[in-house]
Amino acid sequence: METELSKKLGIEHAIFGFTPFPAVAAAISRAGGFGVLGAVRYTAPDELKRDLDWIEAHVDGKPYGLDVVMPAKKVDGVTEADVEAMIPEGHRQFVKETLAKHGVPELAEGEASGWRITGWMEQVARTQLDVAFDYPIRLLANALGSPPADVIARAHDQGVLVAALAGSARHARKHADAGIDIVVAQGYEAGGHTGEIASMVLTPEVAEAVAPLPVLAAGGIGSGEQVAAALTLGAQGVWLGSLWLTTTEAELHSPALTQKLLAAGSGDTVRSRALTGKPARQLRTVWTDAWDDPAGPGPLPMPLQGLLVAEAVSRIQKYEVEPLLGTPVGQIVGRMNSERSVQAVFDDLTRGFERAVARLDRIAGRGRS
Amino acid sequence: METELSKKLGIEHAIFGFTPFPAVAAAISRAGGFGVLGAVRYTAPDELKRDLDWIEAHVDGKPYGLDVVMPAKKVDGVTEADVEAMIPEGHRQFVKETLAKHGVPELAEGEASGWRITGWMEQVARTQLDVAFDYPIRLLANALGSPPADVIARAHDQGVLVAALAGSARHARKHADAGIDIVVAQGYEAGGHTGEIASMVLTPEVAEAVAPLPVLAAGGIGSGEQVAAALTLGAQGVWLGSLWLTTTEAELHSPALTQKLLAAGSGDTVRSRALTGKPARQLRTVWTDAWDDPAGPGPLPMPLQGLLVAEAVSRIQKYEVEPLLGTPVGQIVGRMNSERSVQAVFDDLTRGFERAVARLDRIAGRGRS
Repeated sequence: METELSKKLGIEHAIFGFTPFPAVAAAISRAGGFGVLGAVRYTAPDELKRDLDWIEAHVDGKPYGLDVVMPAKKVDGVTEADVEAMIPEGHRQFVKETLAKHGVPELAEGEASGWRITGWMEQVARTQLDVAFDYPIRLLANALGSPPADVIARAHDQGVLVAALAGSARHARKHADAGIDIVVAQGYEAGGHTGEIASMVLTPEVAEAVAPLPVLAAGGIGSGEQVAAALTLGAQGVWLGSLWLTTTEAELHSPALTQKLLAAGSGDTVRSRALTGKPARQLRTVWTDAWDDPAGPGPLPMPLQGLLVAEAVSRIQKYEVEPLLGTPVGQIVGRMNSERSVQAVFDDLTRGFERAVARLDRIAGRGRS
Repeated sequence: METELSKKLGIEHAIFGFTPFPAVAAAISRAGGFGVLGAVRYTAPDELKRDLDWIEAHVDGKPYGLDVVMPAKKVDGVTEADVEAMIPEGHRQFVKETLAKHGVPELAEGEASGWRITGWMEQVARTQLDVAFDYPIRLLANALGSPPADVIARAHDQGVLVAALAGSARHARKHADAGIDIVVAQGYEAGGHTGEIASMVLTPEVAEAVAPLPVLAAGGIGSGEQVAAALTLGAQGVWLGSLWLTTTEAELHSPALTQKLLAAGSGDTVRSRALTGKPARQLRTVWTDAWDDPAGPGPLPMPLQGLLVAEAVSRIQKYEVEPLLGTPVGQIVGRMNSERSVQAVFDDLTRGFERAVARLDRIAGRGRS
């Protein structure tokens, strides 16, 4: 599975794996793909340093990358307290009542909620980058628009390729104009923040819009057949996130959530603003239903919603309150039916890819292999 | 482009084209595909007979099929007047006000609105079938669930294959259990009634669920690359509807609508209940916005909504009131940018397919053709 981009990066398979877990990222790179560590949860530079050290020690010299969340538009001097003050009391009350209704226990005194808005603010992302640029990362991806010009320049100075996610051709062209190197075309069926255009339509549209820049297809890809389809559509590789959540290397630390993921079908996700205020695909739960209910107050815009629900989400996760327990995940969750190692998932992808190519060759009347 | 199904039907390319226009259906079959005439608008048997005669005279002996809308569940003795009586007065008022607000003229005295609910009722579909079974149709497709058992049996007696549309694997398995021969997996990005699961995920899921029954992929397919991707995903053919709307053979009879289709991008459709009461993808217009506005009364369930808006839709179409003018169409509308003959569209599909296969072969390291 060799494309111009995979050759450039020196990887065997044009399969990029996005994951918040260092062990998964390293295993993807070792398997011949390209592991990309999601950095958003690292608010402390030391923790990111520790995990990048771990990857360095376990990646067998294979290339890997980092994904940050860095807004291109800078909002100077805005603190978390400023944002907190913008949340209406009625919304706080709704969170309280919804949690109480489902018996979600309080956190212990002094216990911090996990996710904070700070991970989404530029100064934190810049601290992450200061750490990351000391490591031989080969790719820097940004999930929220193009990175600022100086970050792109710094990456290029160090020989680091820059990737950005796009949900439309227009969005992708803006990235290209900003000087990035790779566009990740994120289809409707993808987990996390995503637009309304499905991968089948989006992938070729973005590939044509930014050619000759390489495009990675994201959304709906969890088998070798789907990898082959995405490459057929003009992508130079695929970007998979959801599929790794149920690998044995993943550290979800929630058996109940893993079970929910293994049991879920492709129809059990929803594109909801419940998590961050922007539409993001995730497991449909009693919690997302409450936010999407027209009778409720509805989600606040980003970044208010994320801040509003941060503690609630921590409590739901910590106490594994099953009906409310969710996670960002794509429609491909219907195919995630067993816990397997990253290597086993990878073998499945590459074997399925070969089968799909042979099948298409037969249909096209080419060499029957 | 040869699959088991295309061999069985004796067609050169596994490309199925659904269209309400006899000239388009005949041209698709002549080009080596399989034209399927949508019968829902034929409430008069004579008109269907006339158009099938025309196809017979223009199809050069190539195979073709018919698509009806026939509910599996029978509602005995329900007349259009019964259904009319179930429509709330507030909804009628909303239609009146919305049309007045945008200056949509009234129909002339005695002028009938085009679409009537009768086309969706079983007795009308049965009349269509009585006509169609006198012609050598090779395929009977049903857009609304599996056809009734006696219809399937009658089709099989005459050597006619039966196809049904499905938006989920569960739905597809029900069709298979009912004894149909082909499942059309209709993805989220498709025009018309469609579910929430995108083609990239739905196609392989349905193919695995009903194997060894053949599956046609529908939704998001408007180029040879997309045809190749769908076949890679396990489909035995593709089912295209939107793409033919801007062919020179199409009889939209509305230059303004044709221009809207040619100008629309992939993000200019919406999955709305405005047209029939069930979610159907269509051009997003001031009309669909009015129905999807939380401040409005919202659409009624099927079949009430279709009956409620029938006259309004006729008026909007007749007078080509641009801001309200729409049609069911898929996200592939972004690729429909010029009026071309069916043959030219077909050539583009088959050439793009060959290119895509060659590209995938190169990526897979197979014979560099």
